[in-house]
Amino acid sequence: MISTMIEGLIKNGSAVRAMFEEGKKMAAQFGKENVYDFSLGNPSVYPPEEINKEMINVINDTDPNYLHGYMSNAGYPEVREAVAKSLNKRFATNFSGNNILMTVGAAGGLNVILKTLLNPGDEVIVFAPFFGEYKNYIANFGGKIVIVSADIPNFQLKLDEFEQKINKNTKAVIINNPNNPSGVIYSEETIKKLAEILERKQAEFGTSIYLISDEPYRELAYDGEEVPYLTKYYKNTVVGYSFSKSLSLPGERIGYLVMPDELDDAESIIAGAAIANRILGFVNAPALQQLTIAKVLDSKVDVEIYNKNRELLYRKLTEFGYECIKPQGAFYMFIKAPGGDDQAFVQKAKSEHILLVGGTFFACPGYLRLAYCVDYDMIERSLLGFKRLIENA
Amino acid sequence: MISTMIEGLIKNGSAVRAMFEEGKKMAAQFGKENVYDFSLGNPSVYPPEEINKEMINVINDTDPNYLHGYMSNAGYPEVREAVAKSLNKRFATNFSGNNILMTVGAAGGLNVILKTLLNPGDEVIVFAPFFGEYKNYIANFGGKIVIVSADIPNFQLKLDEFEQKINKNTKAVIINNPNNPSGVIYSEETIKKLAEILERKQAEFGTSIYLISDEPYRELAYDGEEVPYLTKYYKNTVVGYSFSKSLSLPGERIGYLVMPDELDDAESIIAGAAIANRILGFVNAPALQQLTIAKVLDSKVDVEIYNKNRELLYRKLTEFGYECIKPQGAFYMFIKAPGGDDQAFVQKAKSEHILLVGGTFFACPGYLRLAYCVDYDMIERSLLGFKRLIENA
Repeated sequence: MISTMIEGLIKNGSAVRAMFEEGKKMAAQFGKENVYDFSLGNPSVYPPEEINKEMINVINDTDPNYLHGYMSNAGYPEVREAVAKSLNKRFATNFSGNNILMTVGAAGGLNVILKTLLNPGDEVIVFAPFFGEYKNYIANFGGKIVIVSADIPNFQLKLDEFEQKINKNTKAVIINNPNNPSGVIYSEETIKKLAEILERKQAEFGTSIYLISDEPYRELAYDGEEVPYLTKYYKNTVVGYSFSKSLSLPGERIGYLVMPDELDDAESIIAGAAIANRILGFVNAPALQQLTIAKVLDSKVDVEIYNKNRELLYRKLTEFGYECIKPQGAFYMFIKAPGGDDQAFVQKAKSEHILLVGGTFFACPGYLRLAYCVDYDMIERSLLGFKRLIENA
Repeated sequence: MISTMIEGLIKNGSAVRAMFEEGKKMAAQFGKENVYDFSLGNPSVYPPEEINKEMINVINDTDPNYLHGYMSNAGYPEVREAVAKSLNKRFATNFSGNNILMTVGAAGGLNVILKTLLNPGDEVIVFAPFFGEYKNYIANFGGKIVIVSADIPNFQLKLDEFEQKINKNTKAVIINNPNNPSGVIYSEETIKKLAEILERKQAEFGTSIYLISDEPYRELAYDGEEVPYLTKYYKNTVVGYSFSKSLSLPGERIGYLVMPDELDDAESIIAGAAIANRILGFVNAPALQQLTIAKVLDSKVDVEIYNKNRELLYRKLTEFGYECIKPQGAFYMFIKAPGGDDQAFVQKAKSEHILLVGGTFFACPGYLRLAYCVDYDMIERSLLGFKRLIENA
């Protein structure tokens, strides 16, 4: 009786969210300290101290109707300017506030840009493994998802297959760098090849193909790895960003889209995205959070805490015999499911009170995602369980 | 090249938002005190003082990762419980937290419930004059809008026409009480008749027809008028609420949906709406605002300030010869356009630096919406302009 799409999702809901809910139930049953929940990318590191201070300053120092009122759908002009300046300083870009649209997190931003670009039947290419929600975001606007299979075991991009899958209906390509769930950072060389293929295919079909770069994990990179800024490599690039991970503010829903002037149809896309932001019901990104992040654009969480988790888990799990590549960014590890069946292993892991998400949700069966944005102590307590699981696999 | 729907909206954008942007430009050109902007429903009354205080308390007293982190897509359980209890106390209802979904304002809530309910081709009935954005919200999910014409000049509901327009494809009906743009409050008698028609038609077609009651203006009622709580009159009612107007927090994007257990398919709708909230990219309502409003559910802005504006404008405009009914709620007046052409009058009014929105946006040409959520002084300064406009009409 209700929407067929939603009905289907009730039956096959988000594996991530299902685990999150299950984790809360198990914690109530067995005690929080006895459940090892690696399911959700919910930051464990505190926001930088200045965040709450600036939030309170903004509340105290701003006219309440300006602070909590409507502004342009794209966001406060001074916030958009501040974001543009910060990007220009860091990445030697040349954006103005006009290129920035403040959004309700990266999920809001992705929905906004897809709403702006897609007509029913347009194709959007994604690379496995990818955040399973992309499937829904694309379907929301009648788009057709086209999946490039996973490049196992290194989880770079299968560019040959990518090239073959581009056709005249290809409207957009989504990449996620650093990648959820693999933790891989695509190198500058990979990005250059990707751009070169896109240029060639645009010329071949006489179309515009937009590269949507989903970058909520940009600030979480380890061992001095650089995350290339894609607008410099390919002019039809739209960047989606979120402060959820870099400032540990996922519940506050604050992020932005970057839509450069160099985009084909830039003027329509910029105007259209503000309209999409409005008519999808976001209206604008939360006002207080906009004014707050503008004051702390150079802040980020203490990444060393995640790094310590990464080192411990990688060292111990590989020692136990799990197979995985060492993640370079984000806070996920993507490990091969012992026995080969990710869903079966996820169920089995529950007996050790370990919560994981199967690779199936990321279009990569046979693997397991482990979110290590958790307490170090919890990881330590979980290790024996991981050991037993692989010994009995 | 971009989305056809968005392309169309760029050409025929929101009249309200276009005026808001124009108002800001005119203020820069002529000075803020010389522009009389009655275009946008952006509250002029300050939020109650306790709002900022509680917001700061929540920031200071809550674990930062709980405060700014992810929670269930439906919202914090304790916030949902608090909302349910507050409704039960005020309206003698019997909701639990499970019936409440925290949303990104009422606009977010309407998109969520329409996404949950609609399949392409489903019909949604609205009564003119209505908030023009409903058209986009319905189109977002492939729904077909069916408009019941305006009941001029009293702006009650044309129930005969309504009954004729219900068919087997009617999935939902949206009403907005108190009404934007007319300021009318539908009486209990009207609501009873509406419910009776819906019951009859459900039985006739063997379908479920959901009544979506959009109530952002519920707390803004004058002269002791009561706004009926619709779940008590018709069991297939979903209520959309927002704190944007009652607490003057429109930029913060905080509201909720009420989905009673009595709904046909309640379980699917409740589960589906949480999924829709997630996949549309809202993910959850802003965390800090959820925790804040839970502490101030009995607060509301000083409605007497709007009432003073209403009295002044109604008295003076009718004295000058404008025709309109006296609004009972919200902060809008809907006046007959002198000369009959609302678009022409909107243009003419700009010569007096008066910004209004034509009734065409509300599916009611020949009328003008005037948002009186503005400074009393501004109204006083604008009066001479209104006088000249009707004298020269």
